[in-house]
Amino acid sequence: MASAPWSVFLGAFVDELSRVGIEDVVVSPGSRSTPLAMVFDRSNFRLRVDIDERGAAFFALGMAKATRRPVCLVCTSGTAAANYYPAVCEAAVSRVPLIVLTADRPHELRGLGAAQTTDQIKMYGDMTVFFREMPLPEGSVGKVAFARQIARESVIRATGAPMGVVHLNFPFAEPLVPDLGVPELFSAGRRPEPPVLLRPRRWADASDIERLNEMVTGRRGVILCGEGEYPHEILDLSRRLGFPILADPLSNLRRYTEAAVIDNYDNILRRDDAPPVEVVVRFGQYPVSKACFTKVGALGPVMIVVDEVESRDFNYLTDVFVRSEPDDFVLASGGLRNDIGSEYLARWADLNEQERARIEGVAHGADSEGRYVLSLIDCIREGSLLFAANSMAIRYLDTFYLKRDKEIRVLCNRGINGIDGTLSSALGAAQSFETSTLLTGDLAFLHDINALHLARGLDTNLTVVLINNNGGGIFEMLPQRSDEPYFERLFLTPHDADFGHIAAGFGIPHVRIEDASAFAEAYREAQSRPGLGIIEVSTLTSGAKERYARYL
Amino acid sequence: MASAPWSVFLGAFVDELSRVGIEDVVVSPGSRSTPLAMVFDRSNFRLRVDIDERGAAFFALGMAKATRRPVCLVCTSGTAAANYYPAVCEAAVSRVPLIVLTADRPHELRGLGAAQTTDQIKMYGDMTVFFREMPLPEGSVGKVAFARQIARESVIRATGAPMGVVHLNFPFAEPLVPDLGVPELFSAGRRPEPPVLLRPRRWADASDIERLNEMVTGRRGVILCGEGEYPHEILDLSRRLGFPILADPLSNLRRYTEAAVIDNYDNILRRDDAPPVEVVVRFGQYPVSKACFTKVGALGPVMIVVDEVESRDFNYLTDVFVRSEPDDFVLASGGLRNDIGSEYLARWADLNEQERARIEGVAHGADSEGRYVLSLIDCIREGSLLFAANSMAIRYLDTFYLKRDKEIRVLCNRGINGIDGTLSSALGAAQSFETSTLLTGDLAFLHDINALHLARGLDTNLTVVLINNNGGGIFEMLPQRSDEPYFERLFLTPHDADFGHIAAGFGIPHVRIEDASAFAEAYREAQSRPGLGIIEVSTLTSGAKERYARYL
Repeated sequence: MASAPWSVFLGAFVDELSRVGIEDVVVSPGSRSTPLAMVFDRSNFRLRVDIDERGAAFFALGMAKATRRPVCLVCTSGTAAANYYPAVCEAAVSRVPLIVLTADRPHELRGLGAAQTTDQIKMYGDMTVFFREMPLPEGSVGKVAFARQIARESVIRATGAPMGVVHLNFPFAEPLVPDLGVPELFSAGRRPEPPVLLRPRRWADASDIERLNEMVTGRRGVILCGEGEYPHEILDLSRRLGFPILADPLSNLRRYTEAAVIDNYDNILRRDDAPPVEVVVRFGQYPVSKACFTKVGALGPVMIVVDEVESRDFNYLTDVFVRSEPDDFVLASGGLRNDIGSEYLARWADLNEQERARIEGVAHGADSEGRYVLSLIDCIREGSLLFAANSMAIRYLDTFYLKRDKEIRVLCNRGINGIDGTLSSALGAAQSFETSTLLTGDLAFLHDINALHLARGLDTNLTVVLINNNGGGIFEMLPQRSDEPYFERLFLTPHDADFGHIAAGFGIPHVRIEDASAFAEAYREAQSRPGLGIIEVSTLTSGAKERYARYL
Repeated sequence: MASAPWSVFLGAFVDELSRVGIEDVVVSPGSRSTPLAMVFDRSNFRLRVDIDERGAAFFALGMAKATRRPVCLVCTSGTAAANYYPAVCEAAVSRVPLIVLTADRPHELRGLGAAQTTDQIKMYGDMTVFFREMPLPEGSVGKVAFARQIARESVIRATGAPMGVVHLNFPFAEPLVPDLGVPELFSAGRRPEPPVLLRPRRWADASDIERLNEMVTGRRGVILCGEGEYPHEILDLSRRLGFPILADPLSNLRRYTEAAVIDNYDNILRRDDAPPVEVVVRFGQYPVSKACFTKVGALGPVMIVVDEVESRDFNYLTDVFVRSEPDDFVLASGGLRNDIGSEYLARWADLNEQERARIEGVAHGADSEGRYVLSLIDCIREGSLLFAANSMAIRYLDTFYLKRDKEIRVLCNRGINGIDGTLSSALGAAQSFETSTLLTGDLAFLHDINALHLARGLDTNLTVVLINNNGGGIFEMLPQRSDEPYFERLFLTPHDADFGHIAAGFGIPHVRIEDASAFAEAYREAQSRPGLGIIEVSTLTSGAKERYARYL
């Protein structure tokens, strides 16, 4: 039996990815990657193209963050693949599933000076959960079966515990244009039933619950919810324990207005009359709030950490580690209870209302960053995405996203907190939403400015709310702050970029707002248009600390 | 004796780098990196700041390429360091010395969920020649002596054979602001005499030369000069052997007008009447010209490779490997001679003149990319830098940079041939020249567009000649070319960016040229202004292949 053309090896690989539910691929143009790019293009994958591989990887990261499903990446050989590294690191630490497919020269053209060639074997080091050097594509029955298995295995690994990055390095020899005319391009070696990936939940048994009840009984404590997805039943857990829920903006719990949901805990924990904390039940990473981990850490409470992989506890307090995903645990913890009454929770709720009133009061009287963000939360549509940049944007959101009965999905690259790839990530995540907003500072925006070119090919609604203080305003908050010239030179780094012109260069609508009262209308106008739009809010670099401090 | 403040550890490190001749550092703003940034800022280093770490590393690469001296890089922890990876790979393969200094959390804050933290240990994998995890800075006598030794060792390794990338990972604990008021900040532990790094030359001995003479005697051959620096004496070698010098644009040998210097060998080797090649003496990488390695490879000549490290011979022909730097070899090879007379060399020279006349003739009649590049070579000033992007720019230069009696330094990132970091690299290299030019296509330019913000802080003359065909024109040359829609979608990727607006966004002068006759004046005008300027040449995407083919 004659072997099929080598293109069916790739067709089978792509088909099998599709059969286990993978739907998206982001391709960067290149020659060596032609076989993968053309086969994906012919398949039923949704294919996006990004000329900058760094941005492409963040774009894929954003998509996978929003869907929790792996997204594929395809690039050519050489430094192209190295440009994926920042997003690969972020995906590894924040547990986002990516399947990175790098094209390479065949083995006999490596390490001997051939053009556009570098050592791509394990080039992302320890940042991947799975690496395989692929064989040259071949159409034989055995090789096609292998291609299908490696596709399944890639998804199994990328969606394991923890989710993470799979890297497959594909050698391709010339000629690079695949034969797409083969009838069995996608069907060769396909088994009748699509593969099934099951993930049974973990259930705590009665003796585990008993053990936990012993730890919490009679103690006053809090449920700390970092980045993650939580079921509504977490409110029941809070009620049974008598513990408030300290809800990070990335917990997406601020959509609930119940008194037990505490959004102003950063401010509360800074107060001298902050309630005592004797137990912490912690899900996900520590919240954005620095007060949260410094104050809680200093109190040395009994610490119960719920996580499927690791403690992530740089307070060195872990007393109980529950190996479980948050939602599994919450749903299985019906037997967990406490007997401290309702007074403690009521005290938290009362302080929370005091802080909310204070923040709204301060905002009312001042044209500060806070007023814009409060206005944004007022205006943002139910069911839409709010992507936050790192540095000040996520901190502003922590302070000014006050809980309300409106479902907003808040996302941010909080694995390693980089300012890189912000616009690309937001555009990626925005693929899953009808309307989206990116809240960003100017340095993060400038860092990834060429991602504006992506808007041309995407059918995406994304409004960028750009708080432009012409430099690294976050450093105003830090001890490095100084009146010496080095502070501006090394930290503030003013750039004087004119974002109106830059936006025009990419054909993107842009409006500059000078006071907060104009924000709501500009925002509604931007959201009503399809595509990308920018609302620029100019603020002063200096004084950011003092303006912010009034709210704290 | 009380220990000095920890800042002297860094002061001694920076001082020792300076004492072995390192002068430049590129810093990206960040908090964790404050100790290094502030100590470098106070030192006598020339310090530049780039907010984008990817660009910063290419900027440093460009500087080190031009000077052949290591350049230091400083960034904060997390994905910042991952952004260095593309330039680190390029530096590793093209043997450019860099000293990468990444800030990190102290060991007790790693791997436990602390913010902006990832595993930075050996994060560049096999791309470095030297990696060390540093201890926390300490002011004790022993630690300060260690800091000085590690500075010396870093330079020893970065400038070894091959030159390459050193990576030191520095843990820093809070407080991060260093004490710069210590009198002995830079002098602690300084030994009286500055350290000396000697590099004796390698000399071939008589029996080696004899051996080589046996290989070449009576054979007709060529001297193939890839990227590198060559002494004028290479012309003597050519004369003694009777071999022409096939001079890649990156050999910087096209400044010599001697008949033996062959610049049009790509065209000559494509001809049916190309002279036979029985021996090749090859220095550096294979040239840009594809015909050069395919035709030469097919002829299977005796191959003598001169290199200090490796063969870089993907034609699998190496018969003699001479472990030597090109200039050492050229200067020591006075005994190398041949007896084939002058006819062979004259034949090459004759064909070369024919091709030159043909290229100039074609250019005269057509408003093609070639005419712009010929005009650029006419206008460019003696002693200035010409940095070429990859893809078409370097190929155009190979064809249209015809030898002439004018010293131009041509540089390009030909280690891995990426299109990333092009503007940053050119700006870096431009630091060593009074006037500079970057020849680039639009995709490479767009890939690194935020590097335009660098112009604000630099005292640099750089004219960007941007050949804008609105997409990946190079793919027109490749077998992927097709009239099917996938070709535009996956390869051409038109972006419709308006570079005039983008330039204005960064405050950079920009002019668009519609025909070649206007080029010379626009170029002279741009070169006469300090700072960055852009001359945009709009050409059609389609037809690039045909336009170029007329010259070949």
